[in-house]
Amino acid sequence: MEFQLSCPIPKSEYDKILLAHGGGGTLTHQLITKIFLDQFGNEYLNQLHDGAVFEINGTKFAFTTDSYVVNPVFFSGGNIGELAVNGTINDLVCCGAKPLFISTGFIIEEGFEIEDLWKIVLSMKDAADKANVLIVTGDTKVVEKGKGDKIFINTSGIGIVYEGLNISPKNVKVGDVIILNGKIAEHGIAIMSEREGLEFETKIQSDTAALNGLVEEILKVSKNISVMRDPTRGGLASALNEIASSAKVKIEIYEERIPISDEVMGACEILGLDPLYIANEGKILIFASEQDAAKILSVMRNHPLGKESTIIGKVIDKGEGLVTMKTLIGSTRIVDMISGEQLPRIC
Amino acid sequence: MEFQLSCPIPKSEYDKILLAHGGGGTLTHQLITKIFLDQFGNEYLNQLHDGAVFEINGTKFAFTTDSYVVNPVFFSGGNIGELAVNGTINDLVCCGAKPLFISTGFIIEEGFEIEDLWKIVLSMKDAADKANVLIVTGDTKVVEKGKGDKIFINTSGIGIVYEGLNISPKNVKVGDVIILNGKIAEHGIAIMSEREGLEFETKIQSDTAALNGLVEEILKVSKNISVMRDPTRGGLASALNEIASSAKVKIEIYEERIPISDEVMGACEILGLDPLYIANEGKILIFASEQDAAKILSVMRNHPLGKESTIIGKVIDKGEGLVTMKTLIGSTRIVDMISGEQLPRIC
Repeated sequence: MEFQLSCPIPKSEYDKILLAHGGGGTLTHQLITKIFLDQFGNEYLNQLHDGAVFEINGTKFAFTTDSYVVNPVFFSGGNIGELAVNGTINDLVCCGAKPLFISTGFIIEEGFEIEDLWKIVLSMKDAADKANVLIVTGDTKVVEKGKGDKIFINTSGIGIVYEGLNISPKNVKVGDVIILNGKIAEHGIAIMSEREGLEFETKIQSDTAALNGLVEEILKVSKNISVMRDPTRGGLASALNEIASSAKVKIEIYEERIPISDEVMGACEILGLDPLYIANEGKILIFASEQDAAKILSVMRNHPLGKESTIIGKVIDKGEGLVTMKTLIGSTRIVDMISGEQLPRIC
Repeated sequence: MEFQLSCPIPKSEYDKILLAHGGGGTLTHQLITKIFLDQFGNEYLNQLHDGAVFEINGTKFAFTTDSYVVNPVFFSGGNIGELAVNGTINDLVCCGAKPLFISTGFIIEEGFEIEDLWKIVLSMKDAADKANVLIVTGDTKVVEKGKGDKIFINTSGIGIVYEGLNISPKNVKVGDVIILNGKIAEHGIAIMSEREGLEFETKIQSDTAALNGLVEEILKVSKNISVMRDPTRGGLASALNEIASSAKVKIEIYEERIPISDEVMGACEILGLDPLYIANEGKILIFASEQDAAKILSVMRNHPLGKESTIIGKVIDKGEGLVTMKTLIGSTRIVDMISGEQLPRIC
């Protein structure tokens, strides 16, 4: 075929892919909208959700994909394998689906220890079992030494959307409360601590976990949920900005309500990082009707992955997509979308 | 978690991943059975098909994944993007399914030209349109320069299995004929020619193509098909060996019947390669009842991707999985599974 269409990102702006194009911030957003959506765009993809939702013969399915390139491959609290299984499960969960089946695509660098591959496979199996999903198909490629970095894993997943549940940013209403299930920034800081060789009194561990069990409990008491989102790459700030922007609403969060450990706070200060922008891998934001908040919080706090669940903010107005935060000292600051690359290869 | 299980591939045998572990031959097979199947094994994965087939609320689905790491990214007759779209479509087709939805996971090396990404995306869109599938969800990761190789693409796909069709190696019967839709080894030789800088009078082009249209025509005239397989990595020989081994049958093929161009034959001689082991990306092997062979061949030959369709062999007996070939000079040779790594990163 002839390529007659000129590239929508002009060379004068960016001619090469930067790390920030994979950072989950504004450059990622530009790449997705100007290159991928421009060509691939369709009713499913355009939702820009954590996955696609479609109906076949009366059943609503969710379908999602994620590639994992985290470095290091083994880190405090997990490894790339369980991260890949849990991450795709959580994307299906955020589509309002019960995860059923997962695929795995391995790209392995020549020379990678088979023993390490085995450890990764064991933990993937363990993660899949815990979440009650099956790994049903896969693929393995090997690239020459120096042409990859140990191991990259793609997981794609299929789930069935819960009946009566309609998850979409466009359902977000003024008055919705925003519930978070626990402490933020742990995954990202665990990875950064490994890389920087930081030592803390208590070892900071990744929060990687599959959230389908927690969400199943929530759905038993309420289906008045507008949207759910796992604040991974780009952290809480990016997830909230994405929702505010697609839902065209103003969101306010309260700094004093955001759970964070002293160790993570300390590490963020040492590393010069803002915890609002740090990746989580076992957290979920739930936008729900205020009248159901109490019962949702109650079941969440009874679940091992939701003990510290709390309302961290509210949808306060319609508008052009804005996130603000009432700080500890009483001022209000704008919480922007991340622009550069804060933490490459965090997931 | 504690890793108490010891690795099923002992260090004394292989301690590190070799290129051959990704070559589609015996080492790939060992890795899949001893590591992946050992842990992930379940009724779907154990079929070791091109994808998983499962039933949900009365509808039978196929689900498949493949990562593409082909080098070079652009080659005569195609590029990594259309290869990734066509390849996953063909895997669904070989599960007996009509492909519907595709996901794309990009792993891009820092510094990759955005213009090249754009060309890849355009050709993916074109391939998806031609095959009437939608790209519905995606993911983009960027790795540091030197930690990847330009671009790797994972595509996963979902399709609906045609009613009345039951594709499985275990359905293969003695007497089944084996139909191939055209010339072999073109994709692999196109790639190798690029790498080696070989020039031929007629440029050898990859045969990358989506085969769902061709198979749809076949299914209009016959559903007496035991198994279908696209002979990609490892070529015709590996695909036939895999089927012979899972179906526990003996297969005989006839060298004089196997379509191959003079240019490809010549290139194979120069490069010291056996065309039976070279990857195809637009070919399909169809195991069908002999009584339906004539009408299947007839519709195939009327399709642009099947003009040179022919019966290349037959299932001659039950047994422990053996492929033999009647050669041009009248002798019979065993066609083994590939053992080492013939062509790394061919797809």
